[in-house]
Amino acid sequence: MLIEIIGYCAGALTTISFLPQVIKAWKTHSTKDISLSMFLMFTIGVSLWLVYGIMIYDIPIIIANTVTVLLAAATLSMKFKFG
Amino acid sequence: MLIEIIGYCAGALTTISFLPQVIKAWKTHSTKDISLSMFLMFTIGVSLWLVYGIMIYDIPIIIANTVTVLLAAATLSMKFKFG
Repeated sequence: MLIEIIGYCAGALTTISFLPQVIKAWKTHSTKDISLSMFLMFTIGVSLWLVYGIMIYDIPIIIANTVTVLLAAATLSMKFKFG
Repeated sequence: MLIEIIGYCAGALTTISFLPQVIKAWKTHSTKDISLSMFLMFTIGVSLWLVYGIMIYDIPIIIANTVTVLLAAATLSMKFKFG
């Protein structure tokens, strides 16, 4: 039970954590210090986690990675736009 | 087999992706555009994933999250230092 709670907290935190970065980049229109390589690799990696979740049909993996891939892709697209 | 390869690629990419951000912040000494909230929440979240991995004794989770927590904490400490 405690193990499950820790797992859910971990998943919630690592997923939601990308939201403040999206908001910051959106507000400031500045993404100079953000690593393009990081968000490129991360977005591809999370997309693969999503494919993995779909293939093994694991709902928590599918939900967490759908949210994360949207937030990571939003940051990535702003990095492309703002430089 | 294909599913496992996708899982390993996903894990490797999302783990290693944080390295270019550490290198960029280290080289430029500039972290203004990086969200403090993001790296704070992410570092705590990955630490919890590590605790989770230790509790269920899952070696891939332990290895991936040990590397990620070190890279995320390095970025976070530079964010604190460089502002």
